[in-house]
Amino acid sequence: MTEVEILKIVIDAMGGDNAPQETVKGAVEAVKQFNVNMILTGEEKAINEELAKYSYVKEKIEVINCSETIENDEKPVFAIRRKKDSSLVVAINMVKDGKADAIISAGNTGAILAGGLFILGRMNGINRPALAPAYPAAKGDAILIDGGANPDCKPRNLLEFGVMGSLYANKLLNIDNPNVCLVNVGVEEGKGNELTKEAYELFKEAPFNFKGNVEARDVPTGYADVIVCDGFTGNIILKLTEGVAGTIFKILKEELMKSPIRKLGALLIKSGIRSFKKRFDYSEYGGAPFLGVKGVVIKAHGSSNSKAIKNAIRQSKILIETNIVADIEKEINLLNGKTNVK
Amino acid sequence: MTEVEILKIVIDAMGGDNAPQETVKGAVEAVKQFNVNMILTGEEKAINEELAKYSYVKEKIEVINCSETIENDEKPVFAIRRKKDSSLVVAINMVKDGKADAIISAGNTGAILAGGLFILGRMNGINRPALAPAYPAAKGDAILIDGGANPDCKPRNLLEFGVMGSLYANKLLNIDNPNVCLVNVGVEEGKGNELTKEAYELFKEAPFNFKGNVEARDVPTGYADVIVCDGFTGNIILKLTEGVAGTIFKILKEELMKSPIRKLGALLIKSGIRSFKKRFDYSEYGGAPFLGVKGVVIKAHGSSNSKAIKNAIRQSKILIETNIVADIEKEINLLNGKTNVK
Repeated sequence: MTEVEILKIVIDAMGGDNAPQETVKGAVEAVKQFNVNMILTGEEKAINEELAKYSYVKEKIEVINCSETIENDEKPVFAIRRKKDSSLVVAINMVKDGKADAIISAGNTGAILAGGLFILGRMNGINRPALAPAYPAAKGDAILIDGGANPDCKPRNLLEFGVMGSLYANKLLNIDNPNVCLVNVGVEEGKGNELTKEAYELFKEAPFNFKGNVEARDVPTGYADVIVCDGFTGNIILKLTEGVAGTIFKILKEELMKSPIRKLGALLIKSGIRSFKKRFDYSEYGGAPFLGVKGVVIKAHGSSNSKAIKNAIRQSKILIETNIVADIEKEINLLNGKTNVK
Repeated sequence: MTEVEILKIVIDAMGGDNAPQETVKGAVEAVKQFNVNMILTGEEKAINEELAKYSYVKEKIEVINCSETIENDEKPVFAIRRKKDSSLVVAINMVKDGKADAIISAGNTGAILAGGLFILGRMNGINRPALAPAYPAAKGDAILIDGGANPDCKPRNLLEFGVMGSLYANKLLNIDNPNVCLVNVGVEEGKGNELTKEAYELFKEAPFNFKGNVEARDVPTGYADVIVCDGFTGNIILKLTEGVAGTIFKILKEELMKSPIRKLGALLIKSGIRSFKKRFDYSEYGGAPFLGVKGVVIKAHGSSNSKAIKNAIRQSKILIETNIVADIEKEINLLNGKTNVK
C-alpha cells in the first residue's frame, strides 16, 4: 500500500468491449461515491474526451498516456512482453512500483493473468494464483475459485484455492468461517476423478471449513460459500450458468409472446421478471480478483458497463483495506509449515 | 439380435426410485404402444401385483423372479459380483445369452455400467464405453457423451466418444452427418487443458463431422448436435443445467407470488410456463445408452416415471433396429485401421 491515506486505484481504461467510455464513467462514479483516487492508463486524448463529459474533483483522477493497447485476440504472454507501453502493462507496473494500490482491467483475460504473474509475481508459497469470481447463487453470492486461470491442476493447487477463496469470501462477502466445497460428481468421499479424490484427502486436513463435495446441481442453490475446482471446470460452471439462464430467458419470452392473454400476463409480471433477471446480472458483482499474486488485481467482465467498473473499484478497495494479500501469504505459510505437501 | 421377429426388451423392474410401480406401468404402456415384448426381472410377487392393475395381452410380458436387488448405495463392482440373482444382473445376463435384445434399468448407475462392462464386455476397438444422454438444447435435443461413465479420460477416449455419439445422434435424432463439438474453455484451436488440446488434434482427422470447440455457454443453445467431453465434465454439465433451471424456476415463482398483480399475471401465463417447463422434462428423453459395450444397455433416470420408462423402451427399440452395436464396431475398426493412435 502506498504511504498516502487515500487509496489509489489504477484502471486500464482501454480494456473491455465498452472502453474507454464505460471505464472512464465508472471511474468518475467511483471517485464521487467512494474515498478513492483513480489513475487511468490509455490514450490520453480519448480518455480526456470522455472525462470532459462529467463534473468531478479533477485532482482525484490522473491520466497516464500509453501508446499501445492489447487487443482481445492477442497471445497473452507475447503481448505482455512486447507491448511495454500498453495501458495494461503500464497499469500493472504502477502497482509493482508502489504508485497504485490495485489494478483493474476489463481487457484480454489471458494478458491480465500473464501480467499479474510476470510483472507482480506469485506470492511465496502459492504455486498457482487463481481467478475468484462471485457466483450468483440463490441464497446469495458465493465465491468460485478457480474461475479459469489454470485449466490443469494438481490436488495441492486446489488446496491453495480453498485457502484463498475462504479468506476472500470472509473479506468480501463478510461470511464468518465460510464453508468450502469441492466440486465433484457425487457428495460421498471416494467419488470423483483422480484430481478431486486426492484433493478431498488434502481438504480433510485443511485450515478452512471444509464441508465436503458439492454436486453441480447444488452449486446454484448456494450450498457452498466457496466453490473450489480446477480452472477448466470453473470456466464450464460460469459459462454454462450464463448459457442456461440466457436460454431460459429467451424461451420464456417466446412462450409469453404466443397469445394475447399471455402477453397481458407478461405485462403484469414485468417488474417480477426484471428483479428476477437482476439476480443474474454480472454488473452487480464487480470483477474477479486474481488471487495469489503480489498485489490486488481485478479482472472485470469484458462487457462491463460503468456500474460493473464502479463495483470492481469498490471491491478492490475492500481487498486493499482488509489486507487480503498479506493475509493469504500468512495463511499459506502456516499451511506450508504444517504440511509437507508439494 | 434374437431370431424372433418381435423384439424382446428386458427391464430391471426393481431399479429406480419409483420401482416397481412405474417400471411395470411403463412396460405395460410400451407393449400396448410399440411392437415389443417385455421381460421384467425382480420380485415376482410385487411385479405381479402391479401388473394386475392393468389390462394387456398377457403373452407380451414375461416376469422372471429374482431373489436380490442392488440398492443405490451399494458399491457397483462388488454388488455385480456378489448379487448374481439380482434383478439387474439377471437382466443383463439375458442380453448376453441372446434371450433379450436390450436391457433397461433405472437403478444404481455404477452397477449398470459395471454390469455392462463385466457381463457384456467392451466392443473390440473401444477402450472406454460411455454414457450418452440426450441434452435438452433450445434448438432441440443434442447428445452428450460421456455423461459420467469415465471421470478420467485420455484424448483417444474422447475420439471414440465422438464416433459413437455421431452414430447415435444420427440413429436416434435422425440428424444427417451430425456436427460434433469438443467442450472447451474457448472456441479457438489451442485453447483448453491438456486433454482437450490433444483431443482437438485427433478430432481434426476424425471420421465424423467435427465442428470445433464449443464453449459451455453455447451448449444450451444447441450449437453442437454431439457434445463430447470427459465423464467428469459431462456430469457437471448435466447436473448444473438441472440445477440452474431448477433454481430459476424457483426464484421466478417466488417473484411472481410477491404481489396480487403479479399473481394475476402468473395465472395468465400458466400455460406458457407449463409448455416451457416441459422442454426441460427429462421424462421426454427416455434414458442414456451405455455405448461401446456388446449389447444395447439403457440407463434410465433414477426418478423415472412410467412415461420415461416407456420412452426408454422406444429408444432401445430404435437402437436395436438401426443396428447401433454393429455399426459402432464397424466404424471403430475402420478408425483403428486408419490411425495408429492408441
